[in-house]
Amino acid sequence: MPVNIPPLLPQQLLPVQGISLGIAEAGIKRSDRKDLLLIALAENVSVAGVFTKNRFCAAPVVVAKAHLSAANSIYALVINTGNANAGTGEAGIIHARATCEEVAKLLGCLPQQVLPFSTGVIMEPLPVERIIKGLPRAVGDLKPDNWFAAAQAIMTTDIVPKGVSSQIQIQGETITITGIAKGSGMIHPNMATMLGYIATDANISQSLLQQMVRHVADHSFNRITVDGDTSTNDALMLLATGAAPHPQITRLESPDFCQLQEAILAVAVQLAQMIVRDGEGATKFITVQVEKGKTLKECSQVAYAIAHSPLVKTAFFASDPNLGRILAAIGYAGIDDLDVSNIQLYLNEVLVAEHGGRANSYREQDGQRVMKQSEIIVHVVLNRGTTATKIWTCDFSYDYVKINADYRS
Amino acid sequence: MPVNIPPLLPQQLLPVQGISLGIAEAGIKRSDRKDLLLIALAENVSVAGVFTKNRFCAAPVVVAKAHLSAANSIYALVINTGNANAGTGEAGIIHARATCEEVAKLLGCLPQQVLPFSTGVIMEPLPVERIIKGLPRAVGDLKPDNWFAAAQAIMTTDIVPKGVSSQIQIQGETITITGIAKGSGMIHPNMATMLGYIATDANISQSLLQQMVRHVADHSFNRITVDGDTSTNDALMLLATGAAPHPQITRLESPDFCQLQEAILAVAVQLAQMIVRDGEGATKFITVQVEKGKTLKECSQVAYAIAHSPLVKTAFFASDPNLGRILAAIGYAGIDDLDVSNIQLYLNEVLVAEHGGRANSYREQDGQRVMKQSEIIVHVVLNRGTTATKIWTCDFSYDYVKINADYRS
Repeated sequence: MPVNIPPLLPQQLLPVQGISLGIAEAGIKRSDRKDLLLIALAENVSVAGVFTKNRFCAAPVVVAKAHLSAANSIYALVINTGNANAGTGEAGIIHARATCEEVAKLLGCLPQQVLPFSTGVIMEPLPVERIIKGLPRAVGDLKPDNWFAAAQAIMTTDIVPKGVSSQIQIQGETITITGIAKGSGMIHPNMATMLGYIATDANISQSLLQQMVRHVADHSFNRITVDGDTSTNDALMLLATGAAPHPQITRLESPDFCQLQEAILAVAVQLAQMIVRDGEGATKFITVQVEKGKTLKECSQVAYAIAHSPLVKTAFFASDPNLGRILAAIGYAGIDDLDVSNIQLYLNEVLVAEHGGRANSYREQDGQRVMKQSEIIVHVVLNRGTTATKIWTCDFSYDYVKINADYRS
Repeated sequence: MPVNIPPLLPQQLLPVQGISLGIAEAGIKRSDRKDLLLIALAENVSVAGVFTKNRFCAAPVVVAKAHLSAANSIYALVINTGNANAGTGEAGIIHARATCEEVAKLLGCLPQQVLPFSTGVIMEPLPVERIIKGLPRAVGDLKPDNWFAAAQAIMTTDIVPKGVSSQIQIQGETITITGIAKGSGMIHPNMATMLGYIATDANISQSLLQQMVRHVADHSFNRITVDGDTSTNDALMLLATGAAPHPQITRLESPDFCQLQEAILAVAVQLAQMIVRDGEGATKFITVQVEKGKTLKECSQVAYAIAHSPLVKTAFFASDPNLGRILAAIGYAGIDDLDVSNIQLYLNEVLVAEHGGRANSYREQDGQRVMKQSEIIVHVVLNRGTTATKIWTCDFSYDYVKINADYRS
């Protein structure tokens, strides 16, 4: 079960003026399941996004990037689950475009004003005819207060739907931010993975929004990512409708910009953490904090070495303070001139290791006590600089193997 | 159970003139278990080795490297299991040295002529007094035909002992090569890991042997390794006693050198593959072959991306031809200018993907048939150069999690 995610209630997700959402059961992989989501936008909504860097990126990613960069105003986003339309070659591109054409026909816009997204199994042909058949029902379902159903519609192996809303004041006006995300809950996000959609009624130019989405991704969804952006389908989209009556935000780093960015980042961090908390088979939520490194890069190397070690992750699953495995991971993180005798390793507040070995003050029962908790902070102090980073991960359980061995069957 | 390793019989492991081995039950972690191995060498045995590059390398690695580079002739190797003496700070160094001193006292040599090795749990103090107490029994047990018991004595989570012997002719003389190894069978070798000892009675200078051991390691044990050499304790040692009456090999790349190197490499490859076949929880032996890359580095990146993907490995465990996961791994391997439409992916002889997607000729039942086998070749043709590499790995099962969650308990 997901680690400490309070149940999401439909009324928690606030409508964002200028956005409506429609859901359908298109039977893409199986029936009786919401698997198609249409997000329709009012006119002049600013849309910005970041996409996977995987060289085998999915056909919808190719098409969405092209449509987004063509600088048409975007009128709709269409998302299907059950099939990633990735590793599908030229046919995949044709299918993604056909989906956009059908949406355009139904909504009365150009196909280039539609962004397609897919998530699910890789390398199987997209059953595009089912999507096309399902789209009129999604259009018929369009309404502003449909975020909860939308969060459900984009799930794959997620156990719970993931959504967050918040409100802030800008220039005396109330601004709403609502986001949804799906993980498929992989621990190493290296398959058709992670989709996030965050909308706000704030008024901000497209170019500023694009800068904001990179910053937000780097400090939220990219903190739960392996090897850079690795999946074939990852995308984070930021939608700003401008329906709120405050003056448009046009200056980078202006107080309004910073305030909005901070609020959107807070929503993104919550969504990203929910993805980890609902990680496949996860039983624990682990924060890895690395401090006092020389560079951000080396802090990240150490953090990811720990977060990706199957030995570390299985020890967390077993609540076994076999903490030498963390030292080994630090040791092979790739910092050639690392002096291990200068490092401190803490588990929550417990000092585990220093001077190249176990701390004198460390007692097994202290490590054991921390390991039994469902929220654990692994805190590494490198003592060689002033840089820090923080990432989030989960443990590695029988169920991870079960879920991934059974995923297609 | 290990994948296709024929049972090792004691008489298969041939003695090597100039080498004797003694085993003891020292009760280092538990009683009733061979956990201490002493390898005693005749005079003037050439000894060469490669060691882990982990910055948290174990105390015995530090000491063994220092003793080896001090250019004393080496008289003995002492290996304990049950405790890695890694992440043990200054006390670990003192313990490793104390072990050498005791061996030196018993054998009548200098402590600097003894090389210590440890494998087992990290970050727990080495119970050096038990080792010291056990050493006289190991000395009393020294004999040339003790390789099988030696292979047993270095096991940790290995299910089966691992050893190989072969014989070749050099200048009309029969040369014997015998090697043993232990894996602890991790899939990602990132803990106290892998020890290999290969001995021969061939006559070869120390400096040539050192060059040979690097070549041998790079083409055998380093082909089953993650992130370079990652564990805290990894070591491969090559011992050449010179007892065979052929003229000493003194020229690099001479026919005798090449013949010996080839034979030793063949033993090392068999041992390395046995480690994978006895990988923790392994049910399948997988060869990943990457061809026609621009550089060796990019071939390795692709091979390891596939070999380390938990999603790929769980799919192999499930015999599920969810082969898009392999495409995704290729895509995130880090080759920025990779043109995925040029790649071919084969599973054994079955063409799975080309032109950026599933091959027209591919049928699910062909993939299924290959996936059900216990030996599988993943063959990637990058079509952008002339370089190739090959590595070995295994699948990822429930038992991996079980073994690693339970390892210390």
